[in-house]
Amino acid sequence: MSPSADNEHAPLLVERRYFTFAEPPKQMQLDCGAHLGPITLAYETLGELNADRSNAILILHAFSGDSHVAGRLSIDDERPGWWDNMVGPGKPVDTSRYFVICSNILGGCSGSTGPSSIDLATGKPYGLHFPMVTIKDMVRAQKHLIDHLGISTLMALIGGSVGGMQVLRWCADFPEMVGSAIPMATTTRHSAQAIAFNEVARQAIMADPAWNNGDYYGGGGPAHGLAVARMIGHVTYLSDEAMREKFGRRLHRNALSFDFTGDFQVESYLHHQGKKFVNRFDANSLLYITKAADYFDLERGGNQLINEALANVPFLIISFTSDWLYPTYQSRDIVSALKKNGSDVSFCEIEAQGGHDAFLLPNRRLDGLVSGFLDRVYHDRCL
Amino acid sequence: MSPSADNEHAPLLVERRYFTFAEPPKQMQLDCGAHLGPITLAYETLGELNADRSNAILILHAFSGDSHVAGRLSIDDERPGWWDNMVGPGKPVDTSRYFVICSNILGGCSGSTGPSSIDLATGKPYGLHFPMVTIKDMVRAQKHLIDHLGISTLMALIGGSVGGMQVLRWCADFPEMVGSAIPMATTTRHSAQAIAFNEVARQAIMADPAWNNGDYYGGGGPAHGLAVARMIGHVTYLSDEAMREKFGRRLHRNALSFDFTGDFQVESYLHHQGKKFVNRFDANSLLYITKAADYFDLERGGNQLINEALANVPFLIISFTSDWLYPTYQSRDIVSALKKNGSDVSFCEIEAQGGHDAFLLPNRRLDGLVSGFLDRVYHDRCL
Repeated sequence: MSPSADNEHAPLLVERRYFTFAEPPKQMQLDCGAHLGPITLAYETLGELNADRSNAILILHAFSGDSHVAGRLSIDDERPGWWDNMVGPGKPVDTSRYFVICSNILGGCSGSTGPSSIDLATGKPYGLHFPMVTIKDMVRAQKHLIDHLGISTLMALIGGSVGGMQVLRWCADFPEMVGSAIPMATTTRHSAQAIAFNEVARQAIMADPAWNNGDYYGGGGPAHGLAVARMIGHVTYLSDEAMREKFGRRLHRNALSFDFTGDFQVESYLHHQGKKFVNRFDANSLLYITKAADYFDLERGGNQLINEALANVPFLIISFTSDWLYPTYQSRDIVSALKKNGSDVSFCEIEAQGGHDAFLLPNRRLDGLVSGFLDRVYHDRCL
Repeated sequence: MSPSADNEHAPLLVERRYFTFAEPPKQMQLDCGAHLGPITLAYETLGELNADRSNAILILHAFSGDSHVAGRLSIDDERPGWWDNMVGPGKPVDTSRYFVICSNILGGCSGSTGPSSIDLATGKPYGLHFPMVTIKDMVRAQKHLIDHLGISTLMALIGGSVGGMQVLRWCADFPEMVGSAIPMATTTRHSAQAIAFNEVARQAIMADPAWNNGDYYGGGGPAHGLAVARMIGHVTYLSDEAMREKFGRRLHRNALSFDFTGDFQVESYLHHQGKKFVNRFDANSLLYITKAADYFDLERGGNQLINEALANVPFLIISFTSDWLYPTYQSRDIVSALKKNGSDVSFCEIEAQGGHDAFLLPNRRLDGLVSGFLDRVYHDRCL
């Protein structure tokens, strides 16, 4: 069943699909040296692949995202996918024109193989027996999916944050499959500060006795530690400015409590985000995915974006003024490297107060840039 | 016994003293409405009070500091006080000329009354029965100590961070006792972002089962939660730039571990800081002091620094370029308010990459500003 939108008022319906590969004895070799298989990737597609298979766009999700990028999973589904403002018919990533693919990353917990999956060797969830995966491994697995879909060149790859790292990794590792690329709010190498925040989040989980060295499936799991880890994340996704606007010093109740239940609206917000996350995310997946981000370094052994094969690839690099997790100077490093190839690079720093989260929020400037860029690529490649 | 420095090579010896007041039934009333007593403040003095008692400088310590501001507690003492680069004979706060006082804050855990002190009513440590204290309460207690020392006007008050909040609180509440003031790396009101980081640190402690609702004295205490809380703090005390310089992506060992033991030097640094803190600080004190900082708002009900009594007080306001916890715009708010009084305000944003910690680190520009300012005040007031 294809996604469908009968008219502009009916919800765009999508479904989660699965692709399994690397069945033993053909397991996939990982950067760490281990072999992993079988591997399942959960994915979603929107729009129709054209006859010459030239209109495919791969969207790469950020750390806590999943394959459900846009539309609704059922008519009653109250929440659309995570980038529904960006992806859909008539939207910047226009699914009436492009064939959009989004898969849950390797190591994730939303249908793809990860630490909560069953290890066939033991019949129990992997837990910490899951091998360490890198961004390169995630991309390696996505390549199997794209091959399976019969697509030899992706018209565009789009992703923000950890999704942007995957875009860049694709460019470095499979440049001949990259028609164009939009890495946003991302970096070529995880900074010491970003590693530090991730490590504190991991320590918060591992400090929770219920984590039990990763072996908690079937039990309650490290709910307290995971909530604290998520709260740390949320502070880094916003910005001083965004928090001032959004919460200021406004109280949650009428007066100061003089106790430790939380007085300020910003505290209630964090508690809420922490609690919500515990219900939808696996703590071990957080450990593995943050580690993959920390290991990400496209500059190791020479800048891997400096590659002749990227000379004719159009790039749109986007950063946001208030993003202090992956600040604009890090996007400029991407631009510099690509310019050495003579690549066709556009760069825009968007004025936005949303912090790192800005790439996920509705923003007309962002919409215009993405739709204009894709329109140009589409006309050059597909017509 | 007075602190002594026989010659420039001998260590400057200091001792911790105690002052107890508010003995029942004369307990001190707190902002939260509770009465607390007896109250002990641990304090240290350096230098000699002059005949007309006009050369006293009160130094207010930051969140995790203590009364031991400079010098050594014994000849064998390996570590000097926390601001030894700033305070001592011939140093910017020159103890051969000034009489320096530093007391551990109310709610602390280094000799002053706090949640780990014995509640005389029960014969057991207060734990969460300790009443919530505010920055105003801390200053109220310090006022008792200054009265006890027979000092009617302080030549200067100096403090950074939470110490700077106390400086400003002194100015608002006891302006007639303030000869001059140097608030550094601080704010008139804790921002939503700063509250957010504090709340995540508190949640890390309270999520640790060993915290046991604050009742852990005599047992192990929430060591894991406290270490995580401290790591969060340390990330906010540095800066992206400082971390890049200090650690970059350098590994702790020779190669990536592909496990969760920590690969990068920045991770080892955080682990070390977390572990060290657990040995010297009380988790409940962290809860109380961070809460006092979060409650701090000198702008509530009209800016409390706008006060005629401060018209003739010289101020030196200092911020640091890389301090993103209390960014320069927050120091400018202090300057604006004081200018409305016609106060004699000097303001300097010091170029420094150390982040919020910059005020504690050796810095020639800072040294010159502080020593020049104090010299002028000394000549105006004491000669």
